[in-house]
Amino acid sequence: MKATQYVGNRTFSVIDKEMSAPAKGEVRIKVAYVGVCGTDVHIYHGMMDKRVRIPETIGHEMSGVIDAVGDGVEGFSVGEKVVVRPLDDRMAKPSDKGYNHICEELKFIGIDSPGAMQQYWNVPAFVLHKLDPTTDLKLAALVEPLAVAVHDVRRSRLRPDETAVVLGGGPIGLLVALVAKSGGAQVIVSEVNANRIAKAKQLGLQVVDPTQTDLVEYVKSKTADRRADVVFEVAGVQPALDVMTEVAGIRGRIVMVAIHGEKKPVDLFKFFWKELELIGARVYEREDYDRAIDLVTKKELPLEDMITDVQPLTQIQEVFKKIDGNPDGLKVLMDCQL
Amino acid sequence: MKATQYVGNRTFSVIDKEMSAPAKGEVRIKVAYVGVCGTDVHIYHGMMDKRVRIPETIGHEMSGVIDAVGDGVEGFSVGEKVVVRPLDDRMAKPSDKGYNHICEELKFIGIDSPGAMQQYWNVPAFVLHKLDPTTDLKLAALVEPLAVAVHDVRRSRLRPDETAVVLGGGPIGLLVALVAKSGGAQVIVSEVNANRIAKAKQLGLQVVDPTQTDLVEYVKSKTADRRADVVFEVAGVQPALDVMTEVAGIRGRIVMVAIHGEKKPVDLFKFFWKELELIGARVYEREDYDRAIDLVTKKELPLEDMITDVQPLTQIQEVFKKIDGNPDGLKVLMDCQL
Repeated sequence: MKATQYVGNRTFSVIDKEMSAPAKGEVRIKVAYVGVCGTDVHIYHGMMDKRVRIPETIGHEMSGVIDAVGDGVEGFSVGEKVVVRPLDDRMAKPSDKGYNHICEELKFIGIDSPGAMQQYWNVPAFVLHKLDPTTDLKLAALVEPLAVAVHDVRRSRLRPDETAVVLGGGPIGLLVALVAKSGGAQVIVSEVNANRIAKAKQLGLQVVDPTQTDLVEYVKSKTADRRADVVFEVAGVQPALDVMTEVAGIRGRIVMVAIHGEKKPVDLFKFFWKELELIGARVYEREDYDRAIDLVTKKELPLEDMITDVQPLTQIQEVFKKIDGNPDGLKVLMDCQL
Repeated sequence: MKATQYVGNRTFSVIDKEMSAPAKGEVRIKVAYVGVCGTDVHIYHGMMDKRVRIPETIGHEMSGVIDAVGDGVEGFSVGEKVVVRPLDDRMAKPSDKGYNHICEELKFIGIDSPGAMQQYWNVPAFVLHKLDPTTDLKLAALVEPLAVAVHDVRRSRLRPDETAVVLGGGPIGLLVALVAKSGGAQVIVSEVNANRIAKAKQLGLQVVDPTQTDLVEYVKSKTADRRADVVFEVAGVQPALDVMTEVAGIRGRIVMVAIHGEKKPVDLFKFFWKELELIGARVYEREDYDRAIDLVTKKELPLEDMITDVQPLTQIQEVFKKIDGNPDGLKVLMDCQL
């Protein structure tokens, strides 16, 4: 079988490897497609060399088919289509209060342990979610980022009669917008990149370039002055932090999706004055995966338009190089069915 | 009748004034006690000269007895003990979504219109809350700040099996701690001032000096590593903002009670990582007043220990001067029954 490995220094290798039998409690998956996540690009950039054990196979957005079933695994059979929820929460403690998806000792499969960027992948059975046999495995590779979006929207408590503003129209921002809109809410995306603005429009989303249009005034005009009931901060830049407390109306909920690596200035007075809420949201829970799979199965969202490139796994080096030089792309998949 | 007026330049005058009949929809209250709020001290310092119409009678923490009833007022009679919820929300708009207590055009009675630091005070009847005839009017003057604390605790969704950390042991911080504790939760107060630490202990509260003891380690030791389920930020200083995201455990809720006049650095990564919530809380709603009155009536809290001084209203200048020079005091009342 072919496997890829991140070897440090912005370099992936493609190696030949013996397939291994699934251990007790594991299954072996024949990987179909694997998506490239922003975190994978971070790893490629060497930003996570302290965490990733080099050389390592990375990747956690995937779809595939069960190829072999280890001892002690029940409820799964060879030939079934599956996706993996890449959270190993076996080290959860009582102090995690049952929030095992973000438990202190969480191991993220594909970062802290071998990932999906290979032809066959052995994983513990408890991370599997079954797909309908008719499911398009290309779209199924989007279940993981879609589950992030489902989780973010669920954390926001967004109601159909409300308005959500999504700050940042990258892959996660657009998925959040699509999920929010599918629930019936009015959704306004704020994005500065012209290609991403065009993509958002193609996806049927209302989009504003805040460098051209006053976002707060625009949202007020679309909400009879209520402003946003929910704001998703997916941009990760200071202008988004500055506008989030302005564009949110009274008792507005701001969901913090972006990763801010250092402390940033925040207008806490506005939190007090308008009784705003800031809600952190990270990865997903089991029910978010179930909902994401449902959205993929029922083809309720224009997910195929999110996929901007598909390349064979063996082209991994070129794929990462290309993503690096192209901020306009959205979701790039690698085909592992060589 | 005697009335006091803030005339600017850290100065109050005491004037003789004709009593006026209550207008339609109003009552006249014979004021018993009026408490000095941090906001009153801000006004005294000239920090709110743009908002307060000089000369003006200020004050909004009070208790009294109905002295006359205007036309069109139903349900209130002369001789009844009352407190005032000093929020004039008559300008509320649909875009305030029914959150009238923080509506955009809210007028705060005692800041934006004449207040209680006088012998007789005319107010619209809709701001009144009736007291039990047996109520101690000194303690009743604490209903307003106590309602702030009740609101803060309600916004936190604190449960009896949880632990709350209160950052800052001033009057509001201690009231928040007492209310949180009365609901059954474990409460830990963090305070640096030795006199306030002693006062917190006198009130039966668990208190830590974070300059002497590692607050996070202390809270971990008291919670089997869960850390705080709820944090109240009542200190308004950067060290409190730095520690709030550390001391909060997974899915912890941080209530922003303090007023931060400028943007401050916040560890947003921790909000993402632990799925923390930041919850703004400002003033109170009707039900918070009802609950605060109930707590005063049933004498469930050691509120008399919160009152550190009582002076005649005519001593207002000396009262404010003394508060300024004494950071150790808690609640100072002025007696208006001259």
